[in-house]
Amino acid sequence: MAVTESLIEGRNAVAEAFRSGKPVDKLFVLDGCTDGPVRSIIRQARKTDALIQFVKKERLDQISETGKHQGVIAYTAAYEYSTVEDMFALAKEKGEDPFIILLDEIEDPHNLGAIIRTANLSGAHGVIIPKRRAVGLTATVAKTSCGALNYTPVAKVNNLSKTIEELKERGMWFVCADMGGETMYDLNLTGSIGLVIGNEGSGVSKNVSKHCDFIASIPMKGDIDSLNASVATGVLAFEIVRQRMGK
Amino acid sequence: MAVTESLIEGRNAVAEAFRSGKPVDKLFVLDGCTDGPVRSIIRQARKTDALIQFVKKERLDQISETGKHQGVIAYTAAYEYSTVEDMFALAKEKGEDPFIILLDEIEDPHNLGAIIRTANLSGAHGVIIPKRRAVGLTATVAKTSCGALNYTPVAKVNNLSKTIEELKERGMWFVCADMGGETMYDLNLTGSIGLVIGNEGSGVSKNVSKHCDFIASIPMKGDIDSLNASVATGVLAFEIVRQRMGK
Repeated sequence: MAVTESLIEGRNAVAEAFRSGKPVDKLFVLDGCTDGPVRSIIRQARKTDALIQFVKKERLDQISETGKHQGVIAYTAAYEYSTVEDMFALAKEKGEDPFIILLDEIEDPHNLGAIIRTANLSGAHGVIIPKRRAVGLTATVAKTSCGALNYTPVAKVNNLSKTIEELKERGMWFVCADMGGETMYDLNLTGSIGLVIGNEGSGVSKNVSKHCDFIASIPMKGDIDSLNASVATGVLAFEIVRQRMGK
Repeated sequence: MAVTESLIEGRNAVAEAFRSGKPVDKLFVLDGCTDGPVRSIIRQARKTDALIQFVKKERLDQISETGKHQGVIAYTAAYEYSTVEDMFALAKEKGEDPFIILLDEIEDPHNLGAIIRTANLSGAHGVIIPKRRAVGLTATVAKTSCGALNYTPVAKVNNLSKTIEELKERGMWFVCADMGGETMYDLNLTGSIGLVIGNEGSGVSKNVSKHCDFIASIPMKGDIDSLNASVATGVLAFEIVRQRMGK
């Protein structure tokens, strides 16, 4: 996993970074600086998971690369994505049938991080996320993955449905996690499999689920609607592990 | 689930609330107020999961019950705990063997909330947490539980080991989630069972694990150490569900 770190300095550049949705890990602000533009940047930063630190001018001068920070420096990290080919290569290297987790619009970075962690430990060969309407690889995701991001390939694709169709042609089966399907214990989840997990609030979108071969449901015994997305991924991923182990 | 909400007003009272670790959900601060005591309160608040809102004087005057807010008002919520008896009563009412999840020092409110959610959906009759060195029922826990806190009893006990010994006398078996135990698929997890989950970083403490009847391990196939605590709870709880269903 290659990480490219960079500094963004000055009020306009930092404000633009937040406006464009660039993943900012840390924001350094001159302590006591309360004018309009800086307060507006802080407001923007609070909406993200950026860590805000109020520091003295000496510290800012020290961090600055340009010497023109105007009281604000943002620290961003860009993680490099893998490809679906990397996942097939990993499966081949281990002599295993491909097992890939596909996420349909997961929004919470803690969920994405926990899912990459689960993917690693359940022996999945990769995680595929869509380009739009989903969280990407931010510092919070990297941190929550507890190092799994260094081992488990994560690929970003334009269109999840198209990717599913392409992978079907390479012999993969797709199971979609949703309510109202067959109880997961009663399905055959062995072989080359893609596990599709939906958005935290709305589940797997119709557009994606119609491309799946079957729907797997976790047996629900309680009073509320659904499990947390990363917990549901864990329960389903380890049902695949159990069946692969022949237990 | 009964919730008691209350306001804490004035600098000393609010500072003391944070010092004593009272769960503060929201902190209202007079906008532009930057003197020492208020900044120290904000610093304290940032260490917790309190939501900080900077508001105008008129808004503070409106919220205030005493009229003496001195620029800061904290909003706390106290959730009422259930008892272990409530869990036995719930199991009896459903005609099921008791299934209880015990948490040894879970610190992250998001994990506790997700675990209560999982407990509800896996049909567990309650969650037991220790009084010390663990997160209690805060607004974040309630929110992350997605309503499960309204259905699933949560009890707080002085000493987890003592509680385990007492419950053993009532016919319960205890399984501790840890590495190096037997693979969970090979254990008999049916009957009256208590599932013990450890701290996010250090796992189940020796003091608690020595009171358990067996150690269950999730088969790990990856490169990193362990699953997220709430994901591990989900995987183990649904293995208990599978065995209870006779699948």
